[in-house]
Amino acid sequence: MEVRNCINFLLSSSQNAVFKYFSKRLSEYGITPSQYGVLNCLWEYGDISPSKIREILKLEASSVSGILDRMQKNELIERHIDQNNQRAIVVSQTKKSMAIKNDVEVIVSEMNKKFLEPFSDEEIKIIKKVLLTISDME
Amino acid sequence: MEVRNCINFLLSSSQNAVFKYFSKRLSEYGITPSQYGVLNCLWEYGDISPSKIREILKLEASSVSGILDRMQKNELIERHIDQNNQRAIVVSQTKKSMAIKNDVEVIVSEMNKKFLEPFSDEEIKIIKKVLLTISDME
Repeated sequence: MEVRNCINFLLSSSQNAVFKYFSKRLSEYGITPSQYGVLNCLWEYGDISPSKIREILKLEASSVSGILDRMQKNELIERHIDQNNQRAIVVSQTKKSMAIKNDVEVIVSEMNKKFLEPFSDEEIKIIKKVLLTISDME
Repeated sequence: MEVRNCINFLLSSSQNAVFKYFSKRLSEYGITPSQYGVLNCLWEYGDISPSKIREILKLEASSVSGILDRMQKNELIERHIDQNNQRAIVVSQTKKSMAIKNDVEVIVSEMNKKFLEPFSDEEIKIIKKVLLTISDME
């Protein structure tokens, strides 16, 4: 079987191309693609629990915890006690992460445009459906 | 923008799901998904140069070199001087890698079937075209 028919190869090599571009563009703002994922949760939903971030980004608890540690150290997020539940933690953004929101969102739009430009609206609809379905499979 | 519309998120999360399954299945045979990529090149093309492997798998030279080092240590490949060009190296398979070929190819078929089963032939054709096109973009 040719490797180009292997779903793992197809996803790895396309992901490599996109990740390389995205990492490079985000590096100007001192953040990584995973950190963008967290910031996007905060920008979409406001203050949010680590478990909700994990659910949205489909990540393991240990991965989210490591990403949040690095972001807190870099002053991109803060962790607080949830006022509604003293045993729970909420994550919130900082002045530093608020300040980069517009620029980072422009990068994401440019990335989507660049990599999806060759395809029709119908093809883009299919690719989004297929990738979301696969990402929920185990 | 919802993160599910970000092409990097869509590819990362679907790739995570597939990679996790594939790594686990291959671990029974002591190989990784990247090492499968190299074995697939050998099984498709016979003896092959490291630069040809790099081209087929769309990897950096340093990545291929590291993968080959580990595979050689684990007796899955051998490196020889190319008989047609004494300055060049060719990679070939070993008894150990020949012995796992059939079982590994069954795993790859099962993985493709599992993750692509929910989709129509037309959708699969589109997803393959889209992912191959993206993987060639920079």
